Amino acid sequence: MALPTITAQGNLVFEPDFQVTASGISRCKLRIACNERKRAENGTWSDGDTSYFDVVVWRELAEAAADTFKKGQPILVVGKVRVSKYEDKNGVERTSVEIIGEEVAAVVKASKAKETTPESDPWL
Amino acid sequence: MALPTITAQGNLVFEPDFQVTASGISRCKLRIACNERKRAENGTWSDGDTSYFDVVVWRELAEAAADTFKKGQPILVVGKVRVSKYEDKNGVERTSVEIIGEEVAAVVKASKAKETTPESDPWL
Amino acid sequence: MALPTITAQGNLVFEPDFQVTASGISRCKLRIACNERKRAENGTWSDGDTSYFDVVVWRELAEAAADTFKKGQPILVVGKVRVSKYEDKNGVERTSVEIIGEEVAAVVKASKAKETTPESDPWL
Amino acid sequence: MALPTITAQGNLVFEPDFQVTASGISRCKLRIACNERKRAENGTWSDGDTSYFDVVVWRELAEAAADTFKKGQPILVVGKVRVSKYEDKNGVERTSVEIIGEEVAAVVKASKAKETTPESDPWL
Repeated sequence: MALPTITAQGNLVFEPDFQVTASGISRCKLRIACNERKRAENGTWSDGDTSYFDVVVWRELAEAAADTFKKGQPILVVGKVRVSKYEDKNGVERTSVEIIGEEVAAVVKASKAKETTPESDPWL
Repeated sequence: MALPTITAQGNLVFEPDFQVTASGISRCKLRIACNERKRAENGTWSDGDTSYFDVVVWRELAEAAADTFKKGQPILVVGKVRVSKYEDKNGVERTSVEIIGEEVAAVVKASKAKETTPESDPWL
Repeated sequence: MALPTITAQGNLVFEPDFQVTASGISRCKLRIACNERKRAENGTWSDGDTSYFDVVVWRELAEAAADTFKKGQPILVVGKVRVSKYEDKNGVERTSVEIIGEEVAAVVKASKAKETTPESDPWL
Repeated sequence: MALPTITAQGNLVFEPDFQVTASGISRCKLRIACNERKRAENGTWSDGDTSYFDVVVWRELAEAAADTFKKGQPILVVGKVRVSKYEDKNGVERTSVEIIGEEVAAVVKASKAKETTPESDPWL
């Protein structure tokens, strides 16, 4: 009964926010926008609402994320999800959702038309 | 860039809340409590905070959940996560997190000491 | 770069095979059949081939699985996947795939028509 | 009861193998090596065996993978797992395991020491 595991793909909403904590640990905050895709009974896809997720990564992973990622870029995140209740400065209870990223990666994009390689099959 | 996929195990906080929507579709709401487990450098485990997740399941799955689950029971959920912003009745912006359950299952528990079966290996 | 994480739902192909190892540890082997579901461009679903997975669970989880599961029952498994190469008795190299189950649960089924509960919303 | 979902991180064993099928569809085959990490009771980590997985991606994703990935590179894959039985040319039954990649991404690495950004918190 640990925290849930999540796999999320989304676009970075702002530049990676890298900081070193008071105890000297690297931390990077990322926010991603994930667009819901809905499929109708007839197979047609349409866009739903956008969900935003705050991701925090630590140590070497924080440094790697800060070095590599740019605002707007699609990334893939695997981690745990934590939901917290807290009181804001007006005493109103609020909910925060945070992904603790265990793996982060840059989603790849095709850059040009591809040429095929010879028909040998490396799996056999 | 669909909604993130989540796998969560937690205890049901209240009895399954089953309803039929105005358009005649079965829906069941579940809330689960997931306890964070933290492991120290020396390998020791300790409890962290509890995260609560709201789960909604639809149609046959809603009926099955309502038939089967009881308050307090540990369940396993696989689904999508949606985060929404909304204004409450005082005009304060709030965040809601919801898991749309695609698979729900009852976590099993050992009920008694086990006797071993013969040593034949069904995998071979 | 740990072993991959897998979430699988399938029907048990045989009764749970429970044993106690020579070192006194409970172990239960399960085999599940997972049917591929294919969706055509027009939204129609059809069945594809069946994939079989061997699952092994240990200790209390092994006892719980052996106590609870029956042949034919649909279960939900979360765990790690390991692929091994080995030589069979004829010296032919073979591949084995194994899921080390970290969470196992019984998929729920609706047993009867449901009556709705009052319209109060426990989430609010 | 669809095919299982898998999330795998591993190093590419060979260069991406890109081809266009007879029906004109782009396909890219990837093989990744995933090292098991074992944790002893005292918290110490050690390496276990390596599991190899064959990944196939299709269409735009195939082109993107072929454009971007290099042998040896760590990648993150999310997809479905299919296990097939087949007879080899000697009539021996064999097992093949394949991941149908739905999302593939390049794992990031830190390239240099990081400087911290100012202490403003973009989440608040």
